[in-house]
Amino acid sequence: MSIPPVRRSPVAAKHCNLARAFELIGDRWTLLILRSALYGVSRFDDFQADLDIPRSVLSSRLAGLVETGIMERRDYRDKGRRGRTEYPLTEMGESLGLPFLAMTAWGDKWLGEGKGPFRLRSKSSGERLSVMLVDERGRPARKSDIEVAIDPRVKRDSTRSG
Amino acid sequence: MSIPPVRRSPVAAKHCNLARAFELIGDRWTLLILRSALYGVSRFDDFQADLDIPRSVLSSRLAGLVETGIMERRDYRDKGRRGRTEYPLTEMGESLGLPFLAMTAWGDKWLGEGKGPFRLRSKSSGERLSVMLVDERGRPARKSDIEVAIDPRVKRDSTRSG
Repeated sequence: MSIPPVRRSPVAAKHCNLARAFELIGDRWTLLILRSALYGVSRFDDFQADLDIPRSVLSSRLAGLVETGIMERRDYRDKGRRGRTEYPLTEMGESLGLPFLAMTAWGDKWLGEGKGPFRLRSKSSGERLSVMLVDERGRPARKSDIEVAIDPRVKRDSTRSG
Repeated sequence: MSIPPVRRSPVAAKHCNLARAFELIGDRWTLLILRSALYGVSRFDDFQADLDIPRSVLSSRLAGLVETGIMERRDYRDKGRRGRTEYPLTEMGESLGLPFLAMTAWGDKWLGEGKGPFRLRSKSSGERLSVMLVDERGRPARKSDIEVAIDPRVKRDSTRSG
C-alpha cells in the first residue's frame, strides 16, 4: 500500500525523528552492517566475511553503533583461540527489524518483480506476515482514510507556525 | 515490536532486495529529498529551500530518482514567470511511505522519547494508525511466533546452499 504525502509542515518536519534516525544509520556501510546483524550475524569476523568491508571501517561503524545503543560489545572465547569480539543487537537494534522489513518488502515489490528470498510466516497458523499500516483493531488503513495530525506541542513550539 | 534476527543464510541474503533498495535511496541527500517529497514537496525550488542543498547536488539526485522511476519530471508555469520543474512521486515513490513511517516510528520511540511531531489516524474512526507486522487477519505477530522461510527457488539457485 502507499501512504499519501502528508500536509507540508516545515515546523513539524524540523522535529521529525526520521532525519535523526538517518543521521545515526543512514551511512551505506552502517545500513549493510545492520542488515547482516538482523540476519543473525554478530561476530566481528563474520561481519567482515559477509560484507567484504575493510577492518578499520567495520571497527569504526561498529563503535558508532555501540555508542548510539543499537549494539552491545561483548568478548567471547573461540575454542581456545585468543579472545574475539561480538556485537549483538540491543532491543533498540532489534526494533530496526520492522522498518528494514518494510523496506525489504518495497524492494521485493518494485525492484525484485514481486519476489524476495525471505517470507515471514506465523509458526502457529502458517499465515503470511506482512508489514502494514493498521488501525487499533488491526484493519488495514485505506489511503483515502488516512489523516496526518500534527502534535500541538510542536505547533506551539515555534513562532513560524502560527 | 521487534523482529527476531532471521536465520543466517548468505545465499538468500545475496538475493535480498533490501541491499538493492539501499543502493537506490541509501544516499543521505536522497533520503532527505524523499522525506520532503513524502511531506508533499515536489518543486525544485521548494526542495532547495527545505533542505538547503546545493542546486547541482539536488539536480543530480532528482535525476537519479526519475531514472529509477521513483519520481516523474514535469514542467509547470508559475504565474507568468518562466517555466519551472516539479518532481512528483510516482506510485513506486509513494510506496516508500510505509518504510519511512516505520523508520519514523523507530526514531520517535528510541530517539524522541516516544514522541514525534506527526500522528496518523483514521479519518472515519479517529483510531490511531501504526505500522505493524500482522498476519492475514490483521493480528499483530508475536515475536516467538515469527518464522522466516527461505524461498526454495533461491536455495536451488546456488551450489553453496546444499
